[in-house]
Amino acid sequence: MCRWLVYSGTPVLLQELLYRPKHSLIDQSLHSQLGAETTNGDGFGVGWYGEGQAPAVYKSTEPAWNDRNLRELATYVRAGLVFAHIRASTGTPVQQTNCHPFRHGKWLWMHNGSIAQFPDVKREIMLAVDPGLYTEIEGSTDTEAFFFLALTFGLEHDPPTAVERAVGFIEQVGRKRGIKHPMQMTVATSDGLKVWAFRYSSEGRSRSLFYSTHVATLRAQYPDNPMLHALSDETRLVVSEPLGDLAGAWNEVPESSYGVIQQGQDELKTFAPRPP
Amino acid sequence: MCRWLVYSGTPVLLQELLYRPKHSLIDQSLHSQLGAETTNGDGFGVGWYGEGQAPAVYKSTEPAWNDRNLRELATYVRAGLVFAHIRASTGTPVQQTNCHPFRHGKWLWMHNGSIAQFPDVKREIMLAVDPGLYTEIEGSTDTEAFFFLALTFGLEHDPPTAVERAVGFIEQVGRKRGIKHPMQMTVATSDGLKVWAFRYSSEGRSRSLFYSTHVATLRAQYPDNPMLHALSDETRLVVSEPLGDLAGAWNEVPESSYGVIQQGQDELKTFAPRPP
Amino acid sequence: MCRWLVYSGTPVLLQELLYRPKHSLIDQSLHSQLGAETTNGDGFGVGWYGEGQAPAVYKSTEPAWNDRNLRELATYVRAGLVFAHIRASTGTPVQQTNCHPFRHGKWLWMHNGSIAQFPDVKREIMLAVDPGLYTEIEGSTDTEAFFFLALTFGLEHDPPTAVERAVGFIEQVGRKRGIKHPMQMTVATSDGLKVWAFRYSSEGRSRSLFYSTHVATLRAQYPDNPMLHALSDETRLVVSEPLGDLAGAWNEVPESSYGVIQQGQDELKTFAPRPP
Amino acid sequence: MCRWLVYSGTPVLLQELLYRPKHSLIDQSLHSQLGAETTNGDGFGVGWYGEGQAPAVYKSTEPAWNDRNLRELATYVRAGLVFAHIRASTGTPVQQTNCHPFRHGKWLWMHNGSIAQFPDVKREIMLAVDPGLYTEIEGSTDTEAFFFLALTFGLEHDPPTAVERAVGFIEQVGRKRGIKHPMQMTVATSDGLKVWAFRYSSEGRSRSLFYSTHVATLRAQYPDNPMLHALSDETRLVVSEPLGDLAGAWNEVPESSYGVIQQGQDELKTFAPRPP
Repeated sequence: MCRWLVYSGTPVLLQELLYRPKHSLIDQSLHSQLGAETTNGDGFGVGWYGEGQAPAVYKSTEPAWNDRNLRELATYVRAGLVFAHIRASTGTPVQQTNCHPFRHGKWLWMHNGSIAQFPDVKREIMLAVDPGLYTEIEGSTDTEAFFFLALTFGLEHDPPTAVERAVGFIEQVGRKRGIKHPMQMTVATSDGLKVWAFRYSSEGRSRSLFYSTHVATLRAQYPDNPMLHALSDETRLVVSEPLGDLAGAWNEVPESSYGVIQQGQDELKTFAPRPP
Repeated sequence: MCRWLVYSGTPVLLQELLYRPKHSLIDQSLHSQLGAETTNGDGFGVGWYGEGQAPAVYKSTEPAWNDRNLRELATYVRAGLVFAHIRASTGTPVQQTNCHPFRHGKWLWMHNGSIAQFPDVKREIMLAVDPGLYTEIEGSTDTEAFFFLALTFGLEHDPPTAVERAVGFIEQVGRKRGIKHPMQMTVATSDGLKVWAFRYSSEGRSRSLFYSTHVATLRAQYPDNPMLHALSDETRLVVSEPLGDLAGAWNEVPESSYGVIQQGQDELKTFAPRPP
Repeated sequence: MCRWLVYSGTPVLLQELLYRPKHSLIDQSLHSQLGAETTNGDGFGVGWYGEGQAPAVYKSTEPAWNDRNLRELATYVRAGLVFAHIRASTGTPVQQTNCHPFRHGKWLWMHNGSIAQFPDVKREIMLAVDPGLYTEIEGSTDTEAFFFLALTFGLEHDPPTAVERAVGFIEQVGRKRGIKHPMQMTVATSDGLKVWAFRYSSEGRSRSLFYSTHVATLRAQYPDNPMLHALSDETRLVVSEPLGDLAGAWNEVPESSYGVIQQGQDELKTFAPRPP
Repeated sequence: MCRWLVYSGTPVLLQELLYRPKHSLIDQSLHSQLGAETTNGDGFGVGWYGEGQAPAVYKSTEPAWNDRNLRELATYVRAGLVFAHIRASTGTPVQQTNCHPFRHGKWLWMHNGSIAQFPDVKREIMLAVDPGLYTEIEGSTDTEAFFFLALTFGLEHDPPTAVERAVGFIEQVGRKRGIKHPMQMTVATSDGLKVWAFRYSSEGRSRSLFYSTHVATLRAQYPDNPMLHALSDETRLVVSEPLGDLAGAWNEVPESSYGVIQQGQDELKTFAPRPP
């Protein structure tokens, strides 16, 4: 499995997100505490939205803790919407085309979890992908297939419905083959304006996912913490594992639900797969 | 495009094949003379048959001229049937899963050339691959898709017919989409006992391919060449470009034909795609 | 040998420098026309000055033409002072610590050429490096040793004199060992404000080096070229090989000389090694 | 720190050593139980003695658990004397030239531990290396410097004395600089006939090291274990951490001692640094 982080808010240097926190994502690549695997050394990726509409990505097959170019990049890239992902492969090769986040136009997508027995269901999922999108698939992961299935089901127009339809489809394909729990996932996706973060698994025991407490609340609770004063009220993090150990800072995303990070009030809603 | 070499005969250290000749494959990776590209630096691979039935492979995304492990390996691996390939990508990513030779059971497969407009025809080709074989496909090249299509059409039982059917299928798919010359190829494949080497292109202007003159003939011609005395009469090379400059040593494989290297008399036959 | 480029002037996206020109540096990595080697595929590096005083670098051991992260980076990094280098190793390993440009504090340094018989003189050169600087040396190239020797001789205070002393020292060390032509170089260095570019070789047959014609002159000559109108009068390029084919745009740096790119009038002066 | 393994005995396929055991070295790369670091993902290397006198090596900067070429190699390389090492860098870059085992002629050398404050003492150690050996140093690790220092002090003629002199020298250099505990090490070296394995640290709390119990004893204890019957009486393993959990199979190498694996009776002796 993997670990990931979404940041949305006051633009910061990537190093503030990736290296600074006590239990940072880079630290998790060596010593994850809540992950299915303690080591997440099978490549990584970072995506962010800059001046243009399309996001930039940086991906590498090296363990994140060793990558010197990432350390450099973290000193000069400043962004207000960042996806970061460290990978622990569930079997597919370690290559850049298998690193998250995946990108299509202005969309980013990353995933922790897996489609159960993916080799057995891959062909049927790939056949369901829109032929016009099919040729954009570059790697061999379940995550990229899932992304393009969600795009096929309308991700760009209505992300929650598209993801619910994609998961419904995957569950149907899996169950036809006798797979008991076809889906295990925490997923984040964004168009550069909003972020959607999903937590779901067929068995109802999903990978961990946390969102940060509203900054205004934390600021009231910790009036002397300078970092909290530098962040806008809109700033929000969603993470596989809490960073740092500020009491009250992290809240678990409930089972079978998804959050929307956006201008104004964020939302937390119920997620239910839609069978085809 | 790419460059490749097949060696079949008296077991030799790989360094004799890969580094020793004047215009060796490693030299061609930097300075190809006959290739569509002068530099073949987008990864490489070597495959050979050892003690067991299944061949071993070594693949890397580095340029072959830089790979220190290949230089080592060439000093300790000795084999009598060797495939070697240096890659110049026609667009698909440089990653180990895209390096030739590809392997399935005891079969090896490598290719110079391309399926024209591969992104446009990939989905239809992949759909035609036997579902039981489909999940073995790891990379994203036209060559691997072509290999699994040939396996689907019976490569393991009748290689020439399977390749003729695969090419016939690819040409039909391409022409339906208005592609004038769907196929360009020199291909080698082996089961560890025989080698089949094909030269064909839809436009009748195929990539270069050469086979070595019978060793007994060369020995008579060059009675003082010690290397020729160390090789058995059965020894044969098939290459994209001649190695070295021994006059009379190399013969062009004719357009639309294939050779079979085997115990006893080798064969050279006509190749004709079979439409589905 | 290698190929390199320095850009100083109106801030531009790196892709304008690295990929856009007809005979761009990335193109030169595959097909150099004036280099000692036609292929420069042994890693590369880019360095640039951004907001802070210290430059950022991005280095990779992949051939530049294949690096997807470089292609991305070129779309979001915009800078007014850029060093870019593609490497053709003269024997030292292909690893990130051997990629140019090298960095020390706010200084960048890159080199085309070589110290003759470097293994024979390396120890004596390394011994001459200031012990306080010695531990910063990470790789094994002649270029990095040369850089730290120049730092030892005062590069940060008087670059031309420091380089002249470093070359004088290297020539003395080499000649003591009977090396006829100890030094072959084109070198660029910068502190983020000025750029110094040197062309020299002990035998008086130095690697090629060109500087661009003053933009105002080119603009008068080509009044309809929109690109020339977008560049400030201060904009200057120094390159191993001309980019593009604009007649009159490129001037050869004379043998045994160096140029200084700076605010106001640039300078071209004589270079003469200073024996210790 | 790192983990390593030496095997000496009945020739086996590398996969028997590297992948088969319950707590194999590859497993330790992800989950070391006794190491200073739980993850050893900063490259690895394998060295073995084959037909010729000089050993072959295979090194990679990838984590060992991901390396497909290693998995292949382990199926076709069979050897009776094997060094294997997985690296957790103590600061020097992850590059092939920093991977163990290091080689000089017929000698291999690998190390777990570190020279304390290596950047502070590196120059003095490098100066002490024989100038004729100096230029063979390719990487930047303390281990390689230590190896060439031991070679300088006569490793090829009397390994225990050479290592004692090298450690004595390193301790003197360190203590001059106020370093309390200059040396921490378990080291293995071989000339292809004998193996020497050292355990020592200046503070007397050395990294763990174990040797396997005499095969005849184990065979008597476990008469039904078929693997033990396939191994000659001379077969011996020395490892950073026990492989598997056969009771009685592993014995700790005592502090400040070294073992010699050789034809006939192996030896275990006291190790004492020799000041210069």
